[in-house]
Amino acid sequence: MALNRSLIIGVSAAVFATTAVFAESHGGNPAVKARTAHMQLYAHNLGTLGGMAKGAMDFDAGAAQAAADNLLALATMNQRSYWLPGTSNADLGEETRALSAIWADGSTIGTAAKAFVDGATAMQAAAGTLEGVQGAIGGVGKACGGCHKAFRAPDS
Amino acid sequence: MALNRSLIIGVSAAVFATTAVFAESHGGNPAVKARTAHMQLYAHNLGTLGGMAKGAMDFDAGAAQAAADNLLALATMNQRSYWLPGTSNADLGEETRALSAIWADGSTIGTAAKAFVDGATAMQAAAGTLEGVQGAIGGVGKACGGCHKAFRAPDS
Repeated sequence: MALNRSLIIGVSAAVFATTAVFAESHGGNPAVKARTAHMQLYAHNLGTLGGMAKGAMDFDAGAAQAAADNLLALATMNQRSYWLPGTSNADLGEETRALSAIWADGSTIGTAAKAFVDGATAMQAAAGTLEGVQGAIGGVGKACGGCHKAFRAPDS
Repeated sequence: MALNRSLIIGVSAAVFATTAVFAESHGGNPAVKARTAHMQLYAHNLGTLGGMAKGAMDFDAGAAQAAADNLLALATMNQRSYWLPGTSNADLGEETRALSAIWADGSTIGTAAKAFVDGATAMQAAAGTLEGVQGAIGGVGKACGGCHKAFRAPDS
């Protein structure tokens, strides 16, 4: 049993060593990096949906649905490990534009986050048609703005 | 109706303009950027699970489950829009280490990807206890390696 346990921990350590090298290889605050990555994936999937909505890309029901499914999967992921207190722009400087208002007493960040989940849910239900995407994209965009206007410092 | 349609498209265009600015503000191939972001989120959540498995972080059942849930959500996202043919390191150079073998006839990338989903599924089922995480982390790590060894160029 002791041997098995050592083996397990040995494997875990090897796995984690690889992960840690990956995660730390580019420096920066880990929470900010995860948030940036998360936002990048929002942008990627919204790029597909927005591009189709405005006619810059041909509508493709499968691709639209995939993007909408991804958007909702991302929106409903547990992000507690990267929206950590102490990682605002007041704490970390230029590395992040996240305002400390996110973590302030009485913050409405939860409401704003829920609005985004609602927008993504509506998009997922509508993404099978071009008209559906066009009808739902405004709600998603408004929800993006709901967080970005209140809780993100202007781009400098 | 024509007015409504204009309004919808106007809103969509505004939303997309914002998205496009975000997505393009850092340059680089959009598919590679999305892949890098996706891998970053894998690493973040694996960092939590690996850290707990090897005892570098205190075990927290809620955090472990959240990380495992996130890992599976990421693993099962539709990534077709960013694993695009023509975006290997032979096509794009140093920007990516993705080998063209991914897209070659007879590629086993699908099997490798499925192994990762299986590993993440096992982790999600096991993440409620430290022993469960320790038991499942090796399978996840092996599946990481299954793609990275066969389909990723060495770090130069």
